[in-house]
Amino acid sequence: MQALKQRILRDGKNLGDGILKVDGFINHQVDPALMDVCGMELARRFQNVGATKILTAEISGIAPALTTARNLWLPVVYARKNKPITMPDQVFLTLTPSHTKGREVELIVSPEYLAGGERVLIIDDFLATGATILGLVRLAQSAGAIVVGIGALIEKSFEGGRAALAHLDVPIESLAVITSMEGDEIIFADD
Amino acid sequence: MQALKQRILRDGKNLGDGILKVDGFINHQVDPALMDVCGMELARRFQNVGATKILTAEISGIAPALTTARNLWLPVVYARKNKPITMPDQVFLTLTPSHTKGREVELIVSPEYLAGGERVLIIDDFLATGATILGLVRLAQSAGAIVVGIGALIEKSFEGGRAALAHLDVPIESLAVITSMEGDEIIFADD
Repeated sequence: MQALKQRILRDGKNLGDGILKVDGFINHQVDPALMDVCGMELARRFQNVGATKILTAEISGIAPALTTARNLWLPVVYARKNKPITMPDQVFLTLTPSHTKGREVELIVSPEYLAGGERVLIIDDFLATGATILGLVRLAQSAGAIVVGIGALIEKSFEGGRAALAHLDVPIESLAVITSMEGDEIIFADD
Repeated sequence: MQALKQRILRDGKNLGDGILKVDGFINHQVDPALMDVCGMELARRFQNVGATKILTAEISGIAPALTTARNLWLPVVYARKNKPITMPDQVFLTLTPSHTKGREVELIVSPEYLAGGERVLIIDDFLATGATILGLVRLAQSAGAIVVGIGALIEKSFEGGRAALAHLDVPIESLAVITSMEGDEIIFADD
């Protein structure tokens, strides 16, 4: 999507080691207008998958999941990384490696809000190695729900996430696919 | 606001000890349509304060901050509780007690996205003791920014947050004000 790719080129920063800083419009400061058009586009791409719920991971997945959800008229569930006191004792929990924390983190969903038979669309900010999204897939499967699609704002195709998710045989959509981050460059795939 | 109060009565749960569970539409599962109308209403109430930025705290502040921001055409900054590797070494950091974690947590904002002279509207999901919001106020003040308003979805007026914020002399708006949670009741103030 041109609007997102142009914004990445203007305000994003290649910090090296495959780390893309997009703190100015996605990960710390959020541009609601950009997030709106991204949500509209993700909703358009997944309009025919029959999703009944959107699943994401706190923290940075919340904004794109919410704007996608409002265009599909679906509720969003965001997996928590800490179990709040309002959550029941029995939960769905999985561990996923955190690139930024250098250790495993928990992803937790309450069975109250993810039921068997639901058709789950997973939305996140990044598709990189696919580890976080695979964690969300495991949570959905634990609940007896079916994953019907996976969407991300930004894909770093050189980290192999798409291949790691291929066995699910569901549509995978990313609005900006980065094929290379050599030096200080940011190279996109053609649309 | 009637839509929010009715939803709290229908799907919220008084867990005792002043804990209101709204995980079904705000804190774990999010209803985007409800969040939209709440954002519209908060934007209406703060349309004349001249805000240049909305500040919130991850995690549950993000959704209402985003929907308020899109109606005021403002960027949102969400204070992080862990410093990501993309953030510079020099940050604004404050400590705030966490009711749900039973210890202090950090609230961190990068100076890249909060500058002197900015007019900051603080939006959060809850106004209870005011501790988190006072943490956000300290971050804004550290940056040399001016707080011009404070908005919350739900206020628990019996926890004293409004009094704790009164010295700031800025408008404070909550969409649903709960005056009492005795037994399993949830009692609202009149609009």
